[in-house]
Amino acid sequence: MHRVPSDSTARFALGELAAQLGAELIGNPARIVSRISPLESATPEAISFLSNPRYLSQLADSQAGCVIAAPAHREAAAQRGDALIAADPYLCFARLTQLWAARARDSVAAVVHPSAVVHPQAQLGRDVSVGALAVIEQDVVIGDGAVIGAQCFVGAGASVGTRTRLHPQAVLGAGCHIGARGIVHSGVVIGADGFGFAPNAGRWEKIEQLGGVRIGDDVEIGANTCIDRGALEDTVIEDGVKLDNLVQIAHNVHVGAHTAMAATAAVSGSTRIGAHCTLAGGAGVAGHVTIADHVHIGPRASATRSLLKPGLYSGLFPIDDNASWEKNAATLRQLHQLRDRIRALEKNNENKPS
Amino acid sequence: MHRVPSDSTARFALGELAAQLGAELIGNPARIVSRISPLESATPEAISFLSNPRYLSQLADSQAGCVIAAPAHREAAAQRGDALIAADPYLCFARLTQLWAARARDSVAAVVHPSAVVHPQAQLGRDVSVGALAVIEQDVVIGDGAVIGAQCFVGAGASVGTRTRLHPQAVLGAGCHIGARGIVHSGVVIGADGFGFAPNAGRWEKIEQLGGVRIGDDVEIGANTCIDRGALEDTVIEDGVKLDNLVQIAHNVHVGAHTAMAATAAVSGSTRIGAHCTLAGGAGVAGHVTIADHVHIGPRASATRSLLKPGLYSGLFPIDDNASWEKNAATLRQLHQLRDRIRALEKNNENKPS
Amino acid sequence: MHRVPSDSTARFALGELAAQLGAELIGNPARIVSRISPLESATPEAISFLSNPRYLSQLADSQAGCVIAAPAHREAAAQRGDALIAADPYLCFARLTQLWAARARDSVAAVVHPSAVVHPQAQLGRDVSVGALAVIEQDVVIGDGAVIGAQCFVGAGASVGTRTRLHPQAVLGAGCHIGARGIVHSGVVIGADGFGFAPNAGRWEKIEQLGGVRIGDDVEIGANTCIDRGALEDTVIEDGVKLDNLVQIAHNVHVGAHTAMAATAAVSGSTRIGAHCTLAGGAGVAGHVTIADHVHIGPRASATRSLLKPGLYSGLFPIDDNASWEKNAATLRQLHQLRDRIRALEKNNENKPS
Repeated sequence: MHRVPSDSTARFALGELAAQLGAELIGNPARIVSRISPLESATPEAISFLSNPRYLSQLADSQAGCVIAAPAHREAAAQRGDALIAADPYLCFARLTQLWAARARDSVAAVVHPSAVVHPQAQLGRDVSVGALAVIEQDVVIGDGAVIGAQCFVGAGASVGTRTRLHPQAVLGAGCHIGARGIVHSGVVIGADGFGFAPNAGRWEKIEQLGGVRIGDDVEIGANTCIDRGALEDTVIEDGVKLDNLVQIAHNVHVGAHTAMAATAAVSGSTRIGAHCTLAGGAGVAGHVTIADHVHIGPRASATRSLLKPGLYSGLFPIDDNASWEKNAATLRQLHQLRDRIRALEKNNENKPS
Repeated sequence: MHRVPSDSTARFALGELAAQLGAELIGNPARIVSRISPLESATPEAISFLSNPRYLSQLADSQAGCVIAAPAHREAAAQRGDALIAADPYLCFARLTQLWAARARDSVAAVVHPSAVVHPQAQLGRDVSVGALAVIEQDVVIGDGAVIGAQCFVGAGASVGTRTRLHPQAVLGAGCHIGARGIVHSGVVIGADGFGFAPNAGRWEKIEQLGGVRIGDDVEIGANTCIDRGALEDTVIEDGVKLDNLVQIAHNVHVGAHTAMAATAAVSGSTRIGAHCTLAGGAGVAGHVTIADHVHIGPRASATRSLLKPGLYSGLFPIDDNASWEKNAATLRQLHQLRDRIRALEKNNENKPS
Repeated sequence: MHRVPSDSTARFALGELAAQLGAELIGNPARIVSRISPLESATPEAISFLSNPRYLSQLADSQAGCVIAAPAHREAAAQRGDALIAADPYLCFARLTQLWAARARDSVAAVVHPSAVVHPQAQLGRDVSVGALAVIEQDVVIGDGAVIGAQCFVGAGASVGTRTRLHPQAVLGAGCHIGARGIVHSGVVIGADGFGFAPNAGRWEKIEQLGGVRIGDDVEIGANTCIDRGALEDTVIEDGVKLDNLVQIAHNVHVGAHTAMAATAAVSGSTRIGAHCTLAGGAGVAGHVTIADHVHIGPRASATRSLLKPGLYSGLFPIDDNASWEKNAATLRQLHQLRDRIRALEKNNENKPS
């Protein structure tokens, strides 16, 4: 991407931050902070935050120039120095990082780099940035203010919503769509063929994947994540979904709004995942099942059946020192026999006079 | 890729489909279908199929204009309207999608985009298409009718067989080979170094990977999948193999013909996998083992030893609600002791007069 | 990459190899070898090695022209023909592959390909090679002798150390740094945003990731691996770390020196992994935990808590034939009840007169 040079760090007066974040300032509005840091490593130039009461003990000793804290910790925060009081300090911190990024990062010039290959029949909105050596094919529609990173590929007939940003080397396949304000990281592949074959006398006959991918607004997709196109209809990712790196979304999957999946999670074909779900890292969901809204699947757990009740589900084999694991794993393979032996013992006991 | 514009949908008369698919038509040969749909969502413009008798109940109510069905369901199919009778409806459906794709998709113009960087000593066959900003190094050989997508990289001395198609941003490393009619999706890396190091006083000394990758005909490789080059000899993928997305094939692995691996499967180094095997999503195979022909490994199961007998193998920790999982997982770590306790009870019982 | 053509194979006289490898030659220094092969497939033109005494039985029958062996196997090696005696044959083999690669592979011409897009404010050292269609943004610093492969992306303010090599289509994000003599394979994404969001009334508010990635010297990173930038501070990979393909390193992770991770391993955010650790294929580490130096985590095991003692830890569900697995998995879900039944039996026994 072309960048307009700027300072690589940001500086804010506390009064300005209070105003922009809608927080109450206790202390000196003219004080300048030039860094965001965790409580324990913060210096006087830094602003920090206390979002988890577990870290309350670090508050008093923190060298931070200012601390964001909840109303419940107003006293403790004020005692140690300048503070911003916000109903949800973690949310306030998130917004602080957004202010920071807007100021610290070079803005992207709204130009099409001359080395990009943009089809004359592509429609670019206003203030679109196209990076060096990007490829935009025919009939593509790019919304206002969108950023197509260097070396990205946007296939024929695809569309990118307003202010969505594709990082360098992202791939948006032909006929696939992403809404507004999305973020697509490098190496993402949207719209590769779903994995569909009919067996034919020991060989695999390809089922051409005729659907596309439809992605809503405010979706973020992590590096090297794959979202396959549907077989007949579209694979659908609804608004506000957040996918981490190396996630696999197979063909015809439907992911409900505001669901988040951590890295290396994988969803098999034709599965329907509800809204407001979370998949922890490495979690998996089998094909052709339904996951209700507000289901949370723990790390590396595999939902092999539908989960129709909200709640937390787990399924991770516990780690152990190797010697213990070896003994337990060997016994595990006889588990069913152990159950039978317990049953026999119970029967035996029943038959005996007590 | 350059595309020659065309209609984005296809239209077929049933008579034409029957002829091309070798199916028997019951009904009106002039009827036009313009969509392929599942039974339950099909409209009168759509052709659908009944491949699994489980969905027989949906047949009567389907609004599809035509249904592909097996001879066993001829009656039921004919009663509801036009039908194509085929010995294997799923295979017939697969071929239908192929006809559809051939008609619906823009054909790729057989030109080398002027922005591609093609070494003068590369040999391109007839009717080869090279997309925008692709790189083809010296001594590469590209077969007739092959399609090298936009921004692909084909390293020195590599070769691509007849009519094989590399999607945008695929990487075929130096000295690596893929046969005819292959499909390589975006983000695939063929020919990165295998992971080989000799320990040397607490550091790792690189073992240069001097082999290549040899891939047969009719192989499909999913997005962001990696196939490493061999250490001394080649990593080999035989004819007809299908790999889904984010699959890892380590150095010196040999994958037998017509084996299929679903997404995020992983095979460690020097392992030999037979022909006609399947690895379900997330399945893994350890290094230096042998998997016989016709072995099927279930989702996320890990073959840590050779599997020399055909059949289905499984090894997935069951998911549960979190509270139950926590109790069971804690007990699991004492499993070996439980076995000992059962043994003690049994001994105790034996010693007692019955 | 541009390559200067050369023979694709190497030839060495044994005397030359002995000198360069610091090994003792038994046999004919003028003998030429033109291939490195495993013992069992070696021909008289090949040099082979015996690193694992397990393969001692293959030594006598090997057709290799020369064999690298340990002093302990000097007799056996000499009896069958020419030999190189080295204290650590596997390390000697590793260095042999390095000599081989240096001779067999085309050297990379130290030129900037005219199609590369290099910002005028980027600083390139001496003898830097920049491949076709690479993008190097402003304020990038590239060390002497570094190789930036074709179609790579190096973001604004990033730096690449001396003689580090980025393979085609690697991404080094803005403000990220890699030291000297590194190897970054194709598809790697360094510096995508860490996965950080604050919940906000059922939606996710982005926490901008303001840190970078700092990678030491002699680090190798496998294909399609992701290393995210830190939230506030940097994600750190220390010297000598080796990461295989499709590995996930989340934001704020710290990986100690000379730690190696096999393919598809994954480390969650803010975790600190010690030096000289190994993670086997598919191993995982939860967020916010600490792994001590010299911890080894077995295949697909998941460290959900800190591991503060060196040693080998395992946690892999054993594979089984499907029928046995089904029975055991079903029983596993009642494991805690089984424990209770054993306890009841034990109590019952205690209460009985013996």
